[in-house]
Amino acid sequence: MIKPKYHIFVCSSSRVNGEPKGFCHSKAAVEIIGNFLEEIRDRDLGAEVFVSNTGCFSLCEKGPIVVVYPDNVWYGGVTPEDVEEIMDEHIEGGSIVERLAI
Amino acid sequence: MIKPKYHIFVCSSSRVNGEPKGFCHSKAAVEIIGNFLEEIRDRDLGAEVFVSNTGCFSLCEKGPIVVVYPDNVWYGGVTPEDVEEIMDEHIEGGSIVERLAI
Repeated sequence: MIKPKYHIFVCSSSRVNGEPKGFCHSKAAVEIIGNFLEEIRDRDLGAEVFVSNTGCFSLCEKGPIVVVYPDNVWYGGVTPEDVEEIMDEHIEGGSIVERLAI
Repeated sequence: MIKPKYHIFVCSSSRVNGEPKGFCHSKAAVEIIGNFLEEIRDRDLGAEVFVSNTGCFSLCEKGPIVVVYPDNVWYGGVTPEDVEEIMDEHIEGGSIVERLAI
């Protein structure tokens, strides 16, 4: 199989133990995921970049959380408007968006 | 923040677009997640290894899927009984479990 060059994980706040915290979800995680999918499609990066929704990262107070692997870069307080910058600087530019990094 | 040394992602099959495929889920993903959490606790690796449930990886026919980052190693057809081997060989031993790798 072809592995993604970048795998973007977005907490959409369901928890492994079933506890519905709902924090990242209420903080627009679904819109963030939608924006990533749209940017990836518009930039024709579907073969290289994969987006997954995930359960809770136990950093709810810093949410919404976006994690980029294999770089192991964690972003907090991400807004739907930040997605374009993460795509430009990190995914296409190879640099961490320092103002969002936690 | 302290980032995990290993981040284990287990598809529990909800999809970003909301389509309930349910394949990995029906293939015991919940039990796999439970076994990982138990092994991590028993081995006192909670500070180094983090487990997340995720949405669909679009590899349903190879499910259940387990992905280990930052190594970008993808395992398919994982059973709850395989969790101990992944913990022994990969997470603690640093070697890929070749028989499960996809």
